[in-house]
Amino acid sequence: MKKVTLIFLVLICTLWHVDAQFRMSKPILSPEIQPDQKITFRLYAPDAKTVKLNGNWMPGWGTQLDMVRNDTGLFQLTIEPIPTEMYTYSYFVDGVKAIDPNNVQVVRDGVRNESMFMVPGEKAVLYGVTDVPHGTLEKVWYPSSSLGLTRLMYVYTPAGYRDSKEKLPVFYLLHGGGGDEDAWTTLGRAPQILDNLIASGKAKPMIVVMTNGNPGEAAAPNVGAKKAEGQTNPGSMGSGKFEESLVNDVIPFIEKNYRVMANKDNRAVAGLSMGGIQTMYLTNNHPELFSYFGVMSMGLVDMSRFGGKNDPEERLKGLAKLKASKPKLYWIGCGKQDFVYQGATDLRKFLDENKFTYEYRETEGGHTWTEWRIYLSELAPKLFR
Amino acid sequence: MKKVTLIFLVLICTLWHVDAQFRMSKPILSPEIQPDQKITFRLYAPDAKTVKLNGNWMPGWGTQLDMVRNDTGLFQLTIEPIPTEMYTYSYFVDGVKAIDPNNVQVVRDGVRNESMFMVPGEKAVLYGVTDVPHGTLEKVWYPSSSLGLTRLMYVYTPAGYRDSKEKLPVFYLLHGGGGDEDAWTTLGRAPQILDNLIASGKAKPMIVVMTNGNPGEAAAPNVGAKKAEGQTNPGSMGSGKFEESLVNDVIPFIEKNYRVMANKDNRAVAGLSMGGIQTMYLTNNHPELFSYFGVMSMGLVDMSRFGGKNDPEERLKGLAKLKASKPKLYWIGCGKQDFVYQGATDLRKFLDENKFTYEYRETEGGHTWTEWRIYLSELAPKLFR
Repeated sequence: MKKVTLIFLVLICTLWHVDAQFRMSKPILSPEIQPDQKITFRLYAPDAKTVKLNGNWMPGWGTQLDMVRNDTGLFQLTIEPIPTEMYTYSYFVDGVKAIDPNNVQVVRDGVRNESMFMVPGEKAVLYGVTDVPHGTLEKVWYPSSSLGLTRLMYVYTPAGYRDSKEKLPVFYLLHGGGGDEDAWTTLGRAPQILDNLIASGKAKPMIVVMTNGNPGEAAAPNVGAKKAEGQTNPGSMGSGKFEESLVNDVIPFIEKNYRVMANKDNRAVAGLSMGGIQTMYLTNNHPELFSYFGVMSMGLVDMSRFGGKNDPEERLKGLAKLKASKPKLYWIGCGKQDFVYQGATDLRKFLDENKFTYEYRETEGGHTWTEWRIYLSELAPKLFR
Repeated sequence: MKKVTLIFLVLICTLWHVDAQFRMSKPILSPEIQPDQKITFRLYAPDAKTVKLNGNWMPGWGTQLDMVRNDTGLFQLTIEPIPTEMYTYSYFVDGVKAIDPNNVQVVRDGVRNESMFMVPGEKAVLYGVTDVPHGTLEKVWYPSSSLGLTRLMYVYTPAGYRDSKEKLPVFYLLHGGGGDEDAWTTLGRAPQILDNLIASGKAKPMIVVMTNGNPGEAAAPNVGAKKAEGQTNPGSMGSGKFEESLVNDVIPFIEKNYRVMANKDNRAVAGLSMGGIQTMYLTNNHPELFSYFGVMSMGLVDMSRFGGKNDPEERLKGLAKLKASKPKLYWIGCGKQDFVYQGATDLRKFLDENKFTYEYRETEGGHTWTEWRIYLSELAPKLFR
């Protein structure tokens, strides 16, 4: 009986992962949204001199607020209510960046890991796992002869795909510089946004394909796959190599292996930042392939700076071909605070001068996932109508 | 031109995620495996008093080794070579646990996040993404009427599944207490192990289904799905509820939606710790469903301590049924240091007394993923032969 009791105790300890954070008598709740909507962050750090908090809702880049130590060594900070949204934050423990060990929600943004929480309300519902039918998210390796790599991508198939014979349209959704194939599924919340929009009838059921836009990479850096030799990122941005592989490798793979409508009016492509550049290259070189384009947080920038070309004449010719192809939607989204705002303005001016119809959505923010989730949520309902 | 240069600089800064860790002149390499196989860990922490390192290769639980500060504020520690393996580690910055911000490899173990690295060699090849055909990993939501939840699981389909008409066998692979549906895909490296074993012909192509074994949960805690009301974990361990849902919900879902051989000789089930208990319950209650069983790091324990039953007579009856069903393999794996070692010994004694044939593999270690990856690597080749 004693042996069994010991096993039980050891097992329970193992299960509870007793470590430094659990030296206190009860688990630490962090972050805690109070009844008055204020939010309290906590960290038990009796041996630290300072603990600071950085959150992506704070004005200014890199702002750090002091957390206050109580007599048990618990550092704490309560902030005023902030709007419904998905937020990321970090602690700085005597200057070293750390995730919140009491919060299981961690998201990776390129090479950084940050803690995450949602403030309840409209956005949390739109970006959350709610009580609606869910799609399936597949991690798929596909051959890219264009890049000489076997590469990883995500394919989202909507709820009901498995039980239906209906062919679906496909949305190719591209990430930004510093990101990878994970980005739209983690910070971008694409599977949740699509689940929620499709369930409410706001978006049509569609397949969403999320590739790795860095042509030198087989997969995200944490996957541990080998990189292509002699290719660098982000130097390859604007090289056109990724766009070539999307057209030659990804689209044929998807159209062979998924139940899709393989035609122009049932293909959409959109991307943020670097993915916006890639989308613009596709509008120029392959207007025959897509009827829906979305350029998020990007515009008319001299691509020679990114290892690409500075080719206004060719791009003008591209626009003539694009116009002739009569796309159903050319959508631009940019934030007022975005550092590419002027580039997006220049793009609109160029399109206006060339009497090319587009839709424009301006938000208040900057070059952030807060804006890109809004753009996805507003663009997806306009596709395949 | 100036504007474009500014945009370029800002973009590059954004891409490189300039933060505290990059105040130094070059990126910090950590961990770095030296030419002599020694491993150096580094953290830039000029304002910290102490930085300590805990790694899962260290003897004793919770050992922390001091890292040494140089005059720039870089803390460093070099350890002697350790065998080829996948390792996890954490820093303790003035007592606060932190992941290594210079290492993009982070794995979640229940509620904890830890940094990860591989020491090159045989194990790193077996557990790594190598140059072989890769299977697809699907995150699938399925209805569980047994548990009143829509639940998340992973389904691994091997390379070639998509292009073949062949029906495949199915391996149901269960995690332990404190884990969830992610565990075998992250710490367990199941997709990589299966890719590598199948490519070398050591294991037969098979589908691997990795569910969430906590009957009160719809999904891992970081998914943000609602829990079932009135169910607790790990109190539900041994309740039989999960096993009921596996039989009634998961297996029918898999056999309806995947190209599988839906018969006893083409079903295997194995689990570690809590998943070992669940596997034992399945051998007792559903010997007609599986021909291959694997019990990892578990044995004969009085289940009343875990909210289950203490029912030796019924279990004996179960064994008679199991024997009559003539399973092709009953496999037991346990480490000499495992706290359930005596329980595994008791199970073997019980099976010996009842003249029931099994295979036993004893390893040197304890109740850890190091052992469970070995067990998966050695058990998978024995299945469906």
